[in-house]
Amino acid sequence: MRVRLDLKYDGAQFHGWAKQPGLRTVQGELETAMHRITRLRQPPRLTVAGRTDAGVHARGQVAHVDLPEATWLALPGRSTRPPAQALRDRLGAVLPADVVVAAAGAVPEAFDARFSALWRCYRYRIADTAALCDPLTRAWVHWHRRELDVPAMNLAAAALVGEWDFAAYCKPRAGATTIRTLLEFSWFRDEHGLAVAHVRADAFCHSMVRALVGACLAVGERRREISWPGEVLGRGVRDSAVHVAAADGLTLEEVAYPADAAGFEARARQARARRGAPSELGRMDSTEG
Amino acid sequence: MRVRLDLKYDGAQFHGWAKQPGLRTVQGELETAMHRITRLRQPPRLTVAGRTDAGVHARGQVAHVDLPEATWLALPGRSTRPPAQALRDRLGAVLPADVVVAAAGAVPEAFDARFSALWRCYRYRIADTAALCDPLTRAWVHWHRRELDVPAMNLAAAALVGEWDFAAYCKPRAGATTIRTLLEFSWFRDEHGLAVAHVRADAFCHSMVRALVGACLAVGERRREISWPGEVLGRGVRDSAVHVAAADGLTLEEVAYPADAAGFEARARQARARRGAPSELGRMDSTEG
Repeated sequence: MRVRLDLKYDGAQFHGWAKQPGLRTVQGELETAMHRITRLRQPPRLTVAGRTDAGVHARGQVAHVDLPEATWLALPGRSTRPPAQALRDRLGAVLPADVVVAAAGAVPEAFDARFSALWRCYRYRIADTAALCDPLTRAWVHWHRRELDVPAMNLAAAALVGEWDFAAYCKPRAGATTIRTLLEFSWFRDEHGLAVAHVRADAFCHSMVRALVGACLAVGERRREISWPGEVLGRGVRDSAVHVAAADGLTLEEVAYPADAAGFEARARQARARRGAPSELGRMDSTEG
Repeated sequence: MRVRLDLKYDGAQFHGWAKQPGLRTVQGELETAMHRITRLRQPPRLTVAGRTDAGVHARGQVAHVDLPEATWLALPGRSTRPPAQALRDRLGAVLPADVVVAAAGAVPEAFDARFSALWRCYRYRIADTAALCDPLTRAWVHWHRRELDVPAMNLAAAALVGEWDFAAYCKPRAGATTIRTLLEFSWFRDEHGLAVAHVRADAFCHSMVRALVGACLAVGERRREISWPGEVLGRGVRDSAVHVAAADGLTLEEVAYPADAAGFEARARQARARRGAPSELGRMDSTEG
């Protein structure tokens, strides 16, 4: 039984998604909770769409996990409701308040939370004046000391949209390509006045979103020309003048998938072929926070 | 010099607005910060529009404070900017992240943050299904276990609008009237699907908003008829079946004032006459959280 989990979390108190010994991580909390509920001998392993970094949040994270059918059908609370709801409710009772399973459901075996994804969408939110600093949203809105020129940042961002080698904006990993398709990258002021980056791509390299945001911040503060982030991209090497933006402003908003099992499989084949050989999966880090 | 402060705070880590020995309060933090910045012999005393309870938040709180003119003109940072901005920036540097001074400015002496107010507006936000529970907004959205009948709650609320004796929904205080004018009280689902109470009145008695919300929750859960909150009001005595709703869902959103000094004074005279003699001010608790 393959099960899809739709997740939301406040990343502030987590050392990111990926399990690490001795550290509190989203994957660690979820696997411990799943283990407790299913009482399987081994904790179930989760595969995730976006391996978010320490401090990064999610409203639309997706993961999958494989459970024995007998476990699925005998979940606690199963007597009074369908297994998907029983799992979600049970996880809700066991998990801490900063991670929530918004939905759980059986999916075809071809569904792969990571490789079947069509695209990931992140938003980065900034309060750049005192009047915009709201203590109630401070967990996921970055407070910035200088006022930003959002139209200039938007122009700079537009020049980065397309299929490129994003090596200049990635932490490189041996054996993994840094070619990505940036489908959307725009800056605007939302209904509250916050400066917001909307970033959508087939996948992201490690720390890519925050490096892109950091390059635009240099434009927004008028420290760099509008053309600069595009020039950095063209040079293809990391530029020490690009500061990776703080994690607190970043939220994974949505991950999109094909409509059916045939689509899941075709997409996963395509993504695997593009981003690295199957044997390298363990080392690859195709998505980020 | 009378100075108006517009405040926002996350109430979770505060024992409410009002200063209490040995406890962390919003008033306490602000007065300590003002004292530190102004270096006056005595800490300046703040007067507030809404004395919010422990755990209650604010996005549109208003307070006033009196400063000697010499202090106002010699604020740190004054050399490079106007005094109002110098005060706001300096407070921003000194205050903890869960309380923010969004604006500061000189006002006529007739302005009284408490008695000049025309009305106060609160919102109470509830996530009543698992899909609505967002860890990123959990600080100010109350998570409720049962799904609510919002249209029924809205009907119940509408029956309470008007000028009434709200004794049934107040913690009584000797010598203070419990007559208030409830200008608006409605329930709706916001753009995210949250159940939201919008409550506006000339002023509120202690714990009144949360008692009104609690009465409507009994209707929303179908434990009581739509007419019940109105019947409780009519009986004029506290009903033990009305549970005061949890503080976490409540936010003071806005306080409105007249346009000019003549209006401030007229309104303050009116409010004082209505809500108690000047000698009783210390004991009165005309507003709440």
